[in-house]
Amino acid sequence: MESLLMLDTDSPLLTDFYEITMAAAYFESGQKDRVGVFEMFVRNFPRNRRYLVAAGLEQVIHYLLNFRFSPSHISFLKSQKELKHVSENFYDYLRGLRFTGNVWAIPEGTIFFPNEPVIRVEAPIIESQIIETYLLSTINFQTLIATKASRIVSSAGNSPVFEFGSRRAHGPNASVLAARASFIAGCSGTSNSFAGYKLGIPVSGTMAHSFIMNYDSELDAFSEFSKVFPSATLLVDTYDPFKAISKIIDSRMSVACVRIDSGDLLSTSKKIRRILDSSGYASTKIMASGNLNEYSIGDLLAKSAPIDYFGVGTELATSRDDPALEGVYKLVAIKSRLKGDQEFQISYKQKTSPGKTTYPAPKQVFRILRDGIIDRDVLTVEGDTVDQGISLLLQYMDRGKVIRALPSLKSIRSKHREGLKALPAALREIHSESESSSTIVVIGKKLKQIIGEPDTKLVL
Amino acid sequence: MESLLMLDTDSPLLTDFYEITMAAAYFESGQKDRVGVFEMFVRNFPRNRRYLVAAGLEQVIHYLLNFRFSPSHISFLKSQKELKHVSENFYDYLRGLRFTGNVWAIPEGTIFFPNEPVIRVEAPIIESQIIETYLLSTINFQTLIATKASRIVSSAGNSPVFEFGSRRAHGPNASVLAARASFIAGCSGTSNSFAGYKLGIPVSGTMAHSFIMNYDSELDAFSEFSKVFPSATLLVDTYDPFKAISKIIDSRMSVACVRIDSGDLLSTSKKIRRILDSSGYASTKIMASGNLNEYSIGDLLAKSAPIDYFGVGTELATSRDDPALEGVYKLVAIKSRLKGDQEFQISYKQKTSPGKTTYPAPKQVFRILRDGIIDRDVLTVEGDTVDQGISLLLQYMDRGKVIRALPSLKSIRSKHREGLKALPAALREIHSESESSSTIVVIGKKLKQIIGEPDTKLVL
Repeated sequence: MESLLMLDTDSPLLTDFYEITMAAAYFESGQKDRVGVFEMFVRNFPRNRRYLVAAGLEQVIHYLLNFRFSPSHISFLKSQKELKHVSENFYDYLRGLRFTGNVWAIPEGTIFFPNEPVIRVEAPIIESQIIETYLLSTINFQTLIATKASRIVSSAGNSPVFEFGSRRAHGPNASVLAARASFIAGCSGTSNSFAGYKLGIPVSGTMAHSFIMNYDSELDAFSEFSKVFPSATLLVDTYDPFKAISKIIDSRMSVACVRIDSGDLLSTSKKIRRILDSSGYASTKIMASGNLNEYSIGDLLAKSAPIDYFGVGTELATSRDDPALEGVYKLVAIKSRLKGDQEFQISYKQKTSPGKTTYPAPKQVFRILRDGIIDRDVLTVEGDTVDQGISLLLQYMDRGKVIRALPSLKSIRSKHREGLKALPAALREIHSESESSSTIVVIGKKLKQIIGEPDTKLVL
Repeated sequence: MESLLMLDTDSPLLTDFYEITMAAAYFESGQKDRVGVFEMFVRNFPRNRRYLVAAGLEQVIHYLLNFRFSPSHISFLKSQKELKHVSENFYDYLRGLRFTGNVWAIPEGTIFFPNEPVIRVEAPIIESQIIETYLLSTINFQTLIATKASRIVSSAGNSPVFEFGSRRAHGPNASVLAARASFIAGCSGTSNSFAGYKLGIPVSGTMAHSFIMNYDSELDAFSEFSKVFPSATLLVDTYDPFKAISKIIDSRMSVACVRIDSGDLLSTSKKIRRILDSSGYASTKIMASGNLNEYSIGDLLAKSAPIDYFGVGTELATSRDDPALEGVYKLVAIKSRLKGDQEFQISYKQKTSPGKTTYPAPKQVFRILRDGIIDRDVLTVEGDTVDQGISLLLQYMDRGKVIRALPSLKSIRSKHREGLKALPAALREIHSESESSSTIVVIGKKLKQIIGEPDTKLVL
């Protein structure tokens, strides 16, 4: 019986099988010492999104540091019929394989846009190839959720948002990654206890309908819970929310917050607020949950729903309106050796499949602010210079070693909050109706020379 | 730095924090010996779905068998401000806590429908409560993907489907769970190497565009790859697929299969087929990939696209058109002690929140076939009898021990294939346009008595 929660943390086999067959072919054809330069970027925005929030880098670096094939991994590979023509030398090579490359990345929490490399890897071709799948699934997912969370938190204005989606996340591990990405992007906490335990994210929770149903009366349930948790949030809609509120008031029980999870949240919250205010419970807060997202939260607040806290689950933990970020990892150059050694040759690479063209060459993104607001990002070749441009890609690993301290989740979260202030107002709009043709990423001088294109602007 | 791939497999903290606070309140109010009977069921079909495929039970049972709080889990809980009024006795109770309950479930691979309990747990209330989140996220996700995969495989008819979605799955662990669920539901294999390593699922793969781009010429890349992998699938659309095919033919290289991953798959596959057939390559197969799903595969085959294999990634591994299965886990009864002991009292529980009503009492589903096809499912109280009805829920655990052998993935897969033959044709339709008002789940006699409703049929 297999739990599938990996005992085998960071297994190099968490990769598409073709990465291994390609590695074997590189090895057998004498290519193993060539350096492949790969960049991950996102081709298009998910639905309605106008900006992306980088997330997942810490897990990628952990994976790279621990990358190694165990004897049982090698045995598995040798048992595969498709690999029968592969030489023993290849397996010897895999046995000694560690990640020895260089990594540049846009720091977690930073706002970025399609076509901008969020991570660049320069490493011997077999290393840079095999890590593709893990890197993509990790950054695609966390960036997807951080982006969704950022929209939801913005929409909720001054009302804190809690991530409650573990039960609908794509398995128990995805639930923890979703909690992490949501916190980075501004959620105030999560319901996921493991995210509290491992990552120090504030955990919170209220009570379930089943708790209420376990007791002979709703008031018994409230009262027993409040004895242990005096500042608890009480769930009032198991049977009838207004009757529940009346019972609380009649009993003169003290209650910090009540939660509603069903029905018409606008009218219910307004009526509850009126009842509470007229009964000496003006300081009792109201929390709402139940299939909420950035759109419904925006609507509720626009109609003055008196909701103090939002719990957002399914829509956030699955990015339900668009559950896949189509980040890709593409070869942009081949070098004869790693940069840092004295001399090297470089050959730029570009794919030209219909609709899937890539920009060649190792690239950098320079962000130009005007009055504190992003004016444009210049996408250009590494080494190009851009006046007043702030480099978005920073080097995190040098020949397999981490050379930059990874920030705490709290400081990533602050960074994101600061970064949002620089976002042009048009790009904050959560509705697609407001889509404009504004362009924010422009191609820099040296990149233009390489791709030989005219004065191109990428339309976002 | 945290990898978040759990060293801490099956941690009991992979749960919503409110499960812990409720557990503490149950404990402090003297409820710990009551037995909570919970059932998980799905309220509504995901978009366009007309049936569901049960998956994830093996991981749940593994979790229940390994359920225990470690000293560091307890320390974490004690550090939480919200728990400061909880007594040391509660932590002692948690230290000794194991899962000691009974579990019934619909076997993996079985077709089932909304409102039918897919799993029933009877256990002391604290145990049955804390496991909720893990159980839901595990079964919700795998059932979601198995259901999607079943539709895609049906749509592809005789052309095998391979699951290629790891890079867009919700993190590396979700990619393995998605591979498992897809295989159960009929996929022929996966690109995920770890799923091959841990679960024995056939792995396969082709090559990436980056492999082609690494070589000076496309033909060099094909030729070097074919030396090591003589029966390889060659990816022909890095630059121009027809030129690539011409190069292969001119070189008289032998090739088992070619893959196209972009452009108009219908016209491209037809043209490639004609070129191959007229050049002595009639036995070379064609594989297609690139944002495929059940709808586009159905369209391609309806228009006679000569595609022999399909690779399906993002749409499958994220269930993109509806990425959340809204399975819920609800209290249906409280017993004074576990069944099996001599006597017990039972009190049925029902939630009546607007739009979220539950059916009370521990239930069983009886499936009635007519001429080998599902005529109806009867949802009724456990212990009720239904003529010719086959019980869908089987007992897997008795007081914490596994009492039924868990089948291999291959036998689950066969079971699903057989089960599909019993599905009424109307429920196989993949398009919502064909939605009928047919009802297939009916309420049995004894359940009717309990809920006091008239001759109800649940409309699916």
